[in-house]
Amino acid sequence: MSICEFPDTQDKQPDMPLSLTKVGVTGVKKLLKIKRDEKRPIILLPTFDAYVDLPSTQKGVHMSRNPEAISEIIDEAVNEPEIHIETLCAHLVKRLLEKHEYATRAETEARGEYIINKLSPVSNKKTQETTQIIARAVATKDDNGDIHVQKMIGAEVIGMTVCPCAQESIIKDSKEKLLEFLDEETVEKVIDSVTFASHNQRGRGSILLEVSENQDVNVEDLINIIQDSMSSPVCELLKRPDENRIVTNAHKNPVFVEDCVRNMTSGILEKYSNLPDSSMVTIKQVNEESIHQHNAFAQKNASLGQLRKEIYGDE
Amino acid sequence: MSICEFPDTQDKQPDMPLSLTKVGVTGVKKLLKIKRDEKRPIILLPTFDAYVDLPSTQKGVHMSRNPEAISEIIDEAVNEPEIHIETLCAHLVKRLLEKHEYATRAETEARGEYIINKLSPVSNKKTQETTQIIARAVATKDDNGDIHVQKMIGAEVIGMTVCPCAQESIIKDSKEKLLEFLDEETVEKVIDSVTFASHNQRGRGSILLEVSENQDVNVEDLINIIQDSMSSPVCELLKRPDENRIVTNAHKNPVFVEDCVRNMTSGILEKYSNLPDSSMVTIKQVNEESIHQHNAFAQKNASLGQLRKEIYGDE
Amino acid sequence: MSICEFPDTQDKQPDMPLSLTKVGVTGVKKLLKIKRDEKRPIILLPTFDAYVDLPSTQKGVHMSRNPEAISEIIDEAVNEPEIHIETLCAHLVKRLLEKHEYATRAETEARGEYIINKLSPVSNKKTQETTQIIARAVATKDDNGDIHVQKMIGAEVIGMTVCPCAQESIIKDSKEKLLEFLDEETVEKVIDSVTFASHNQRGRGSILLEVSENQDVNVEDLINIIQDSMSSPVCELLKRPDENRIVTNAHKNPVFVEDCVRNMTSGILEKYSNLPDSSMVTIKQVNEESIHQHNAFAQKNASLGQLRKEIYGDE
Amino acid sequence: MSICEFPDTQDKQPDMPLSLTKVGVTGVKKLLKIKRDEKRPIILLPTFDAYVDLPSTQKGVHMSRNPEAISEIIDEAVNEPEIHIETLCAHLVKRLLEKHEYATRAETEARGEYIINKLSPVSNKKTQETTQIIARAVATKDDNGDIHVQKMIGAEVIGMTVCPCAQESIIKDSKEKLLEFLDEETVEKVIDSVTFASHNQRGRGSILLEVSENQDVNVEDLINIIQDSMSSPVCELLKRPDENRIVTNAHKNPVFVEDCVRNMTSGILEKYSNLPDSSMVTIKQVNEESIHQHNAFAQKNASLGQLRKEIYGDE
Repeated sequence: MSICEFPDTQDKQPDMPLSLTKVGVTGVKKLLKIKRDEKRPIILLPTFDAYVDLPSTQKGVHMSRNPEAISEIIDEAVNEPEIHIETLCAHLVKRLLEKHEYATRAETEARGEYIINKLSPVSNKKTQETTQIIARAVATKDDNGDIHVQKMIGAEVIGMTVCPCAQESIIKDSKEKLLEFLDEETVEKVIDSVTFASHNQRGRGSILLEVSENQDVNVEDLINIIQDSMSSPVCELLKRPDENRIVTNAHKNPVFVEDCVRNMTSGILEKYSNLPDSSMVTIKQVNEESIHQHNAFAQKNASLGQLRKEIYGDE
Repeated sequence: MSICEFPDTQDKQPDMPLSLTKVGVTGVKKLLKIKRDEKRPIILLPTFDAYVDLPSTQKGVHMSRNPEAISEIIDEAVNEPEIHIETLCAHLVKRLLEKHEYATRAETEARGEYIINKLSPVSNKKTQETTQIIARAVATKDDNGDIHVQKMIGAEVIGMTVCPCAQESIIKDSKEKLLEFLDEETVEKVIDSVTFASHNQRGRGSILLEVSENQDVNVEDLINIIQDSMSSPVCELLKRPDENRIVTNAHKNPVFVEDCVRNMTSGILEKYSNLPDSSMVTIKQVNEESIHQHNAFAQKNASLGQLRKEIYGDE
Repeated sequence: MSICEFPDTQDKQPDMPLSLTKVGVTGVKKLLKIKRDEKRPIILLPTFDAYVDLPSTQKGVHMSRNPEAISEIIDEAVNEPEIHIETLCAHLVKRLLEKHEYATRAETEARGEYIINKLSPVSNKKTQETTQIIARAVATKDDNGDIHVQKMIGAEVIGMTVCPCAQESIIKDSKEKLLEFLDEETVEKVIDSVTFASHNQRGRGSILLEVSENQDVNVEDLINIIQDSMSSPVCELLKRPDENRIVTNAHKNPVFVEDCVRNMTSGILEKYSNLPDSSMVTIKQVNEESIHQHNAFAQKNASLGQLRKEIYGDE
Repeated sequence: MSICEFPDTQDKQPDMPLSLTKVGVTGVKKLLKIKRDEKRPIILLPTFDAYVDLPSTQKGVHMSRNPEAISEIIDEAVNEPEIHIETLCAHLVKRLLEKHEYATRAETEARGEYIINKLSPVSNKKTQETTQIIARAVATKDDNGDIHVQKMIGAEVIGMTVCPCAQESIIKDSKEKLLEFLDEETVEKVIDSVTFASHNQRGRGSILLEVSENQDVNVEDLINIIQDSMSSPVCELLKRPDENRIVTNAHKNPVFVEDCVRNMTSGILEKYSNLPDSSMVTIKQVNEESIHQHNAFAQKNASLGQLRKEIYGDE
C-alpha cells in the first residue's frame, strides 16, 4: 500500500441515514476574463458558492471536487468567444453532477462587482460606476438520468431616491406662505419654477431574473432598468453643473420605495417580452433613508406570467 | 386647512396596478429587557425588519407605522412576567395587520446577540460566550378575516470542528512509520495513547425551528444542541489545562461539516418530540476551513415529520 | 510531575531578540451593566481589544491573562455605584500591567452600541436611537516603576446633512426663472418663503477625546455635540409632521462635511473648557453622499490647546 | 450671467478660522489594468481614499477634483509599460497638490484584492489564491514650494497557524501514557514518528512597508514573506495527498502569533537590505483562534534601522 493511497473517509456509510439538502463550498474567489466581439473584455472577480445534495448512504461529499469544477469551468471559458456568467454557472452545475455521481441536484451562485463606464450628465467627463452582479444555476437529474438546468441573472445598482411625500408637504407649506402675498395663479407659476426640497438618499435597486437555458440576457440592460427606476442615477464624478442637473432632475421625479419596484417591473416587461411566463423574478428596492437610521424596503416576487396578468390584465 | 393636515400621498391610487409582496423597514435596532422568574433578566439588542404586503390599489404603505408597532410591542413586553422573542415577533405581526388595514400578510424578523454564561472546562473560570439568536413570525389574514400566525426561533453558535479525513491520513502515515520499529499490537496501543493532528477550525452551526403559536422553546436548548454537534465547544477564557482538554476532546471527536448537521438533527428530534410533524426546520453548518480561504457548508431543510421518517423509518 | 503542570512555552527565550509593540486579543465581547444614581442603568455589549508590549527576552505573552483581566474588571464594576466605560478601560490597563510583569505598556479599546431614548420633534413619540461609543486607555510603566494612564472616550452618531453648494445653485436657477415674471423684491420674498432642494444624506460624525485620569465626561454630551453639528438629527419614528419639520430644518441649515467638523470643534471647546490644553482630540465626519457611491470625509486631529489657539487666537 | 456659472460656495471664507487635517473622498472604486513586460497584466479593482489639508481661510475643498484626479492618474497609467500601485499613488498625491492650490499635504490609500496563481503542493493542480494589497502615499509641500513624497506598499495574506503551546501539552500527555508500556528511547522514536495534535486556524499576516520614492518593491515578494511566516500556506484546491502534506508540515512548524511577526521581520530584513534605515514598517499577525471566538494579535511598528539594531545589534 503506497503512501498515496489515502483513506476515503467520505465514501463510508454514515451512522445516521439522513440525506442532506446541500453540501459544498462557499466563498471561492476567482479572476475571470470574458472576451467579447469588438468590445473590451469584461473583467470579473466573482465569489462562487457551489453545492450538491448528498444521499443518506454517503458520509460526506468529496469537497475538493467543487473548487476543482469551478477552476475547470473558468479555464475552459477562456477559450469561448464570449460567455455570459449565468451560462458559466449552468456549465458548472452540470460539471458538479458529473463529478459527484451520487448527487441528483447541484446549485451554484456567483457574485461580484461589475464596473461600467459612463459620462457625467453635463460636463461629459468619463467615470466608472460599480454595480453588483449575481448569477445562479441549478441542475437536477430526473429518474431517467436526464438533467434539467435552471439559470438566473441579476444585478444591484445604487441610485438616488427623493421622497414624494415629504416634498408634497414642503410644497404645501411654501404655498401657504406664498398665498400671503401672491395670488393663486402667480403662486402656481412660482411652484412650477422652483425645485422644492425633500429628503433624498442612496437607494439600492436589484433584479434577479430567471432565463431559459438557451437564452442569454445582457446584464447591462438589467442595470439600465434598475438605474432608470429611481429618481436619478448617481455618478462618481460630478462637476458643479452636473450636480445641479442631478439634484434638479431627481427632485422632479420623486419616487417611493414602492414606485422603484413598479418602475423596474414595467422595465422588465417591456424589455423581456420574449421570456416565457414561467420565468421567476425577484425585484427589490432598499432606500438608506436620510431621515432615519433604518432603511425602507419593497419587494415583488412573481413569475413574468403573473406580472403580465397584473399589469396588462387577461387579454 | 391647517398646517398640520399633511397630504397623504401614500393613500393615492398608483399609476400601475401592481400588488407588492412585502414593503416595510429593515434595520430597526432596539434595547429589550426580558424578565424571567427567579433568573436574571435577558438583555437583547435586536435588529428588526418588519413588512406587510401592499394591494395594487394603494400607492404606498404608511411606513412609520412599522417602527411604531415595534416600539409599542417592546414597551408592552416590559409588563410581561416573561416573554420569548419569537412570541414578541408573533405579537408584532398581529399588530402590523391591525395598523395596516389594507394588508393581508405581515412578516418580521429579529436578530441579535445573546450572551450566555459558562465555566471553562477544567479550571472552572467564569466566562461569557456570544451566540446569535434569530426569531421570525408571519401573520396571514384569510378570506374570513381570521389571522393565522407562524413563528420560528433559531440560534447560531461558534464551536470547533476537527476534520476526520485529514486525521485518518495522518494516523495512516504515522502507523507506517511506527511499523518500521514496532510490532502491530504495540502500534495499536501507541495509536490509542496519542492525540493525532488534523486540521481544525471555527465552525458555525445554526438551527431555525418553527414552533406552534402557543408553544415556546427555550433558545438555550437550541444553543446546547448546536454546541454539542461539533468536535468541541469553544471558550473565551482557557487556562493551559482547559486548552489541553478542549484540544484533546475535539481530536477524539472529529466531525465532517455533514456530521454536524446530522448531530443537530438527532438533537432536535430527541429534544422536540412534542413539536408537530408539520414544523419546518433549517439546520446549517459552516466551517471556516483552516487549510483554505473558502468555507465548507452543509444544510438540511425539512419538516420534523420528514426528519422523523428518514431517521426512524415508517413505524 | 503531575499532569496539571503544563509546559510554559511562552516563558522560553525566543530565537530572535525582537521586542514586540503590542500582543494580545481582539474581539472579546462582554455584557456590561452600569449602575447610575437615580437613573436607569446603562446596558452595553462592548467588544474589547487588549494588548501589552513584549520584551525581546520572552517568546510569548500569557494570552489567557487578557480575557481574564477583562472578566475581572467587569465583575468588579458591578459593585461600583457608577463607572464610566473609559475609567473601566483605565482599570483594565493597570490590571494588565500587574498580570504581565514583563510588560511596560498596556493598551485597550472597547467599542459598542449605546442606545439613547428621545422624542420625535413634533408628535413627541418615544423612540430609541443607536449610537456607537468607543473608549480607550493606555498605561505605561516608567523606569521608576510608576504607572501613567491615558484615557479617551468617544462616540459616533448618525445625522442628516444637506449640501449648501447644490442648494445655492438650485436657488440661483429658480431665481432666474422667477425674475422672468416677478420683480426683484418679490423674488426675494418668494425665496424666503420656499424650502429649496439640495442633495442630503446620512452623515456620521464622531469625536474621540482624551480626558485626564481623574476626570470623567458624560458621553451623552459628546453625542449631543455631534448630533447638533449636522443639518438635523435623524429619528427612528417620524409621523408626517415630524418628517416635514426635520426636512425643513435641515434645509435651513445646510452644512459641508467640513462645517460639521468645525461645528463639533466649537461644541467641544465650549463644553470642555475645564479639560487641559494637552488633551488630544480626533473629530471626524463622513457623509454617505446621495449623489455618489463614494463618501465625503473631513477630519481634524489636534490638542485642545491647538484648537483654542486656532479659534480664539493668542489671548 | 449664464446658467453655467455656478456659485463657488467652497471658496468662501468660513465663519471659524479652523484649518482641517484632511478633507476628501473615501470609497472610490476603480478597475485598473497594469501592463507587465512578458507577463500577464495585473488586474486590480482597488478602492481609493484621497485627501488634502484645508487652510483656515477656505470654507471647503473642491471635492470633485479628488475623483477626477484618481480618474486621470488611472487613465494615464494605461500608457505606462508597467507601474506599481504605490507609484500610482505617489503620482496621485502630486496631482492632488496641483489641483488644490491651497493645500500643503495630500494623502491617498488604495486597497484591493490581488489574485495570485499557484500549484497545490503534491498534486500540482492549478489554483488561484486571493491576497489583499494596500498602497499609500503622502505628499507635503514645504515652505519653498518643494514637494516631498512618501510611499508605502503592503499586503495581507491568509495562512495556517498551529499553536506550539497546546501541541507541547498534547505531546507531554501522550508521552506519559506511552511511558507506561514503552521505554524512554522507544518513546522518543515514537514521538519523532507521529504528528501530534494542536489547535490550528486561519491566520492573517500583513506587512506595510515604506519605500523610497524612486524605489519599487515587488508586492509578490511581500506576499511570499508573509506566507512563509506561518505554519503553512493554505490552498484553495487540495486533493487528499495535498491536504495530508499541508497538515503534516504545519504541525511540524508550530508558531505563536508572536513568531509570525518575528518571521516576517527576518524575511523583510533579508529581502530589503537595500532599503534605508529610515523606512517605517508595520508587521501584524491576527490568528482566528479555533478554540475561542476572539482572535490573537501581535504587531511590530518600527523603522528598518530599529529592526536591524534589535536583530543584528550595533555592528
